[in-house]
Amino acid sequence: MITIDRTDLAFQLHDLLDTARLAAHSRFADYDRAAIDGVLDTAERIAINHFLPHAALLDENEPAFVDGKVVMDDAVGEALRHFREAGFFGAAFDREWGGMQMPETVRQAASFIFMMANIGTSGYPFLTAGAANLLASFGTVEQKERFLRPMVEGRFYGTMCLSEPQAGSSLGDIVTSASPADDGSYRISGRKMWISGGDQEISDNIVHMVLARIEGAPPGVKGISLFIVPKYRLDPDGMASERNGVVLAGLNHKMGYRGTTNTLLHFGEDEPAIGYLLGEPHRGLAYMFQMMNEARIGVGLGAVALAAAGYRASLAYARERPQGRHPDGKDPSGPPVAIIEHADIKRLLLAQKAAVEGALALVLYSADLVDRIREAEDEQARREDELLLDLLTPLVKSWPSEYCLEANKHAIQVLGGYGYTRDYPVERLYRDNRLNPIHEGTHGIQGMDLLGRKITQAGGAGVRTLAERVMADIKMAHTLDGLAGFAETLATHLSETVATTGRLAHAVGKNPRLGLANATIYLDMLGHVVIAWMWLRQAVAAVGKRANGDGDPDFLDGKLAACRYFFAHELPATRVKRDLLDSLDDTTLSMKPDWF
Amino acid sequence: MITIDRTDLAFQLHDLLDTARLAAHSRFADYDRAAIDGVLDTAERIAINHFLPHAALLDENEPAFVDGKVVMDDAVGEALRHFREAGFFGAAFDREWGGMQMPETVRQAASFIFMMANIGTSGYPFLTAGAANLLASFGTVEQKERFLRPMVEGRFYGTMCLSEPQAGSSLGDIVTSASPADDGSYRISGRKMWISGGDQEISDNIVHMVLARIEGAPPGVKGISLFIVPKYRLDPDGMASERNGVVLAGLNHKMGYRGTTNTLLHFGEDEPAIGYLLGEPHRGLAYMFQMMNEARIGVGLGAVALAAAGYRASLAYARERPQGRHPDGKDPSGPPVAIIEHADIKRLLLAQKAAVEGALALVLYSADLVDRIREAEDEQARREDELLLDLLTPLVKSWPSEYCLEANKHAIQVLGGYGYTRDYPVERLYRDNRLNPIHEGTHGIQGMDLLGRKITQAGGAGVRTLAERVMADIKMAHTLDGLAGFAETLATHLSETVATTGRLAHAVGKNPRLGLANATIYLDMLGHVVIAWMWLRQAVAAVGKRANGDGDPDFLDGKLAACRYFFAHELPATRVKRDLLDSLDDTTLSMKPDWF
Repeated sequence: MITIDRTDLAFQLHDLLDTARLAAHSRFADYDRAAIDGVLDTAERIAINHFLPHAALLDENEPAFVDGKVVMDDAVGEALRHFREAGFFGAAFDREWGGMQMPETVRQAASFIFMMANIGTSGYPFLTAGAANLLASFGTVEQKERFLRPMVEGRFYGTMCLSEPQAGSSLGDIVTSASPADDGSYRISGRKMWISGGDQEISDNIVHMVLARIEGAPPGVKGISLFIVPKYRLDPDGMASERNGVVLAGLNHKMGYRGTTNTLLHFGEDEPAIGYLLGEPHRGLAYMFQMMNEARIGVGLGAVALAAAGYRASLAYARERPQGRHPDGKDPSGPPVAIIEHADIKRLLLAQKAAVEGALALVLYSADLVDRIREAEDEQARREDELLLDLLTPLVKSWPSEYCLEANKHAIQVLGGYGYTRDYPVERLYRDNRLNPIHEGTHGIQGMDLLGRKITQAGGAGVRTLAERVMADIKMAHTLDGLAGFAETLATHLSETVATTGRLAHAVGKNPRLGLANATIYLDMLGHVVIAWMWLRQAVAAVGKRANGDGDPDFLDGKLAACRYFFAHELPATRVKRDLLDSLDDTTLSMKPDWF
Repeated sequence: MITIDRTDLAFQLHDLLDTARLAAHSRFADYDRAAIDGVLDTAERIAINHFLPHAALLDENEPAFVDGKVVMDDAVGEALRHFREAGFFGAAFDREWGGMQMPETVRQAASFIFMMANIGTSGYPFLTAGAANLLASFGTVEQKERFLRPMVEGRFYGTMCLSEPQAGSSLGDIVTSASPADDGSYRISGRKMWISGGDQEISDNIVHMVLARIEGAPPGVKGISLFIVPKYRLDPDGMASERNGVVLAGLNHKMGYRGTTNTLLHFGEDEPAIGYLLGEPHRGLAYMFQMMNEARIGVGLGAVALAAAGYRASLAYARERPQGRHPDGKDPSGPPVAIIEHADIKRLLLAQKAAVEGALALVLYSADLVDRIREAEDEQARREDELLLDLLTPLVKSWPSEYCLEANKHAIQVLGGYGYTRDYPVERLYRDNRLNPIHEGTHGIQGMDLLGRKITQAGGAGVRTLAERVMADIKMAHTLDGLAGFAETLATHLSETVATTGRLAHAVGKNPRLGLANATIYLDMLGHVVIAWMWLRQAVAAVGKRANGDGDPDFLDGKLAACRYFFAHELPATRVKRDLLDSLDDTTLSMKPDWF
């Protein structure tokens, strides 16, 4: 009952972002519009044929911990074999290392398709790409040859090992240690918790990227280094040979997202865990942030994909299910209408559409920034894009995690009792999506990152760039039929938001506890304003196409209606939140633990 | 990890509602304060010893459909044996039929305790009470003797059979038929879907209350009658004997709430299903509304109980889990603080506290109205209370279903990754609570009931009574230290709400489709205003006790802080919703199905 509809994806890539323009850069020369569509055709075919069919099964029969190993359905490995044969493991990597040099925007669009079909199975390659990216950025040539190349080929998978049972989000408190050996390698000792993809029997090897402290390192985040720790040691030919001292100690049994194993790993307990320092000592957290930022965009994308799957499933149900009559047509002997005719069902569908397509626009806009940064010729423009991407990252991670989860809640509601049963996919999608506000940094962490760091970074240049980009689209919208009202509304919200941001930045400087007390609310508020911008951009593109007689008029009218929905039903609440933020409300801060 | 804390329950019953005052009525003469506390002691003991221990087990090993029967863990029957021996099946019923004549407020408070411990097992007696209430209200003496008495004794259980696979919420479209037999009984034929407790092997018999059409009845809701259809026919001594033609056709496999079987039942397919008309022909839906209204209060209570369990579990975790440091104290070598020290964790806990205690106040206020209506000596006062209860019922059902589910979401967030695992109860509570916005009428149905019927009932007397009651508490608050600001704020919200209500009532009269298009948003908005009233009432009681040096000061300060939270963080958004409602926004109504 999950279907993959690419109409919106095509609109976003081609009409909103003109992704094919990237083909003008030599790196992306192969990716003209036809090639991009070809990549998505392949992704769709593999997703439908090999990812989708076992998604429900993998949820009902989650991976199990048997005799120290992970046992899971063969369909996962089979799906990933097809994924690998199509080259997707190496999608974004350099040709030099076996990759396809795909633009990040296209890679994310393809990922979106796989995640819609089966988020659990999709987890393995996307974690692998993140780990491989660290090697590509900071590895020596030898490290790349031994570890990156087999990951790009999809023979080795990767993980990121940050959290520890006692430390959770507080990475400064990790205690895993690294002791130097005579041969330049290290012996890693410690326990890592919440490691997604931390073990499986699908790939030839697993390359763990592990945060640890070299003996004698300073306390806190400044004493953390990053290590490459394979599950199997490599023989001189680079093939996996004997086991390294990395032991699967247990699987976490989750509410959803069950197909991606989530593990507790022990390093160096019974036998030594040999690790290799990546980059320089004590710079591990800075390196890892690159991976985390990428993972955060991936989390946002996953949240959108789950909501998109639920939206489509509930839309199909609403079109087919007859029930009830209009308030002014209660003749009981007349036939019932399809529930999509009811205003409240349309509200539940519009809320989903607004969240899914608004959030997808934000994720792909961010991916496009990654591509722009990579290929920029103007250093000033690159710097602006970098700061904007830094600013947007906590929003890309958190907004979809919150509102696409809400969308999945609405999808269940459209199906009513059926939606609450395991016979339909919408309850599974809702359970899967509940993970996204937690992993890769909770909303609380993202809020602190946004208000405590990103807002004031480079003298507030990120916020200034954001405001400029939004204003450029507002100006464009002003010239278009029917969009002036939206443009004016967003301009007002933007200027109020900039003012509130300034007040808060000042307050954080004066009194960090008070200034940051409502950081999560700020995150939420700014997220809504940014999504309104994404809707204005979509409306501009839709009006343009409508005027040119280009594209499906129903689809384009739907874009305008969803924009209207977001501006009428969602955006106004941000004003109330700005009032709260402006007042430096200390209700939560001043609450005493004993009062609960 | 679920604990039962009765501090707030005691505050609500004794300080807010003075439930023991009901002992002045002869019906409730036994229920002085000591007796009420005794009832709750018994409930707590049974809940802790017999309901709580198998709650997680029942979720992991849900009831199964084996050889036409329901197989479930013996612990359920064992728990209900204790429940029965303590007399709870007959809690609210007349002594004449074996009951305990407990005030509804006390019965709901006891139910709250059982539901916190185990919502699945609690389902059976609460469905039984609803069915038995129909018999008590509309049954003949013979029907009461044969069916009501064994239900009050807990030997027979009951169900309500409304929905059908093709009809869902649209009861006017049900097709189950009733054909009169020569002996005055009927032969029932049809299929009923979503029947909770529809089958089990615990009770001696199951008494289904079935909506069906007598042959030749008018179409729609005016042709529906109500029938008593037992699983086993009764012998002359009233004991269950041979099977009646009610067959379990399947179990629904749900996301949560798994302990309460949910069934598809076939009536009269292979052998006749003998049924007995309850009350008069064609009045079935009106009778059933009594049961539904009661069930709706029960749904609200269940939603609160699930959130209360999650709140307590997450609060205990937050007090014990050390992680991170304050924004102004980042010395990495210092010890981390308990996460309850972080403002954002306090926000997640305050949001839960505000939802749980605010919603519990509303549920118990409604139960108190039931008691007042029952014992009223003044016909005018009774009528006012009835109309107020009618008005509040959709709010009692829907507000907790929405915001206590949100509270369960926050409980997971407090626990982070741990909360997402099945090792902690919070994910289960969240899954359980997702049912509540669906059953006994979705939010959409409640919104139509509220705005389409309840608002205009008796010339708007319900809204007038509500406004008078709120104003009385506002006046009281004005006289108390520190509450004048809350009183003024609520007075403004109330008068705006009354104005919006008037505009909408007018619009509904002129153009029902447009007037009702945003009924769910009206439901949400009014719910928030009513919960703010409940918080003001709690603040008034807390200030009074504080001034008298009565009660735990921390607990009372917590009440004031939660009131402040609700007024600062939750209530202001209602203004934005009133603006939308006042504008008669038609974004959802005018959305065309083809535009999705």
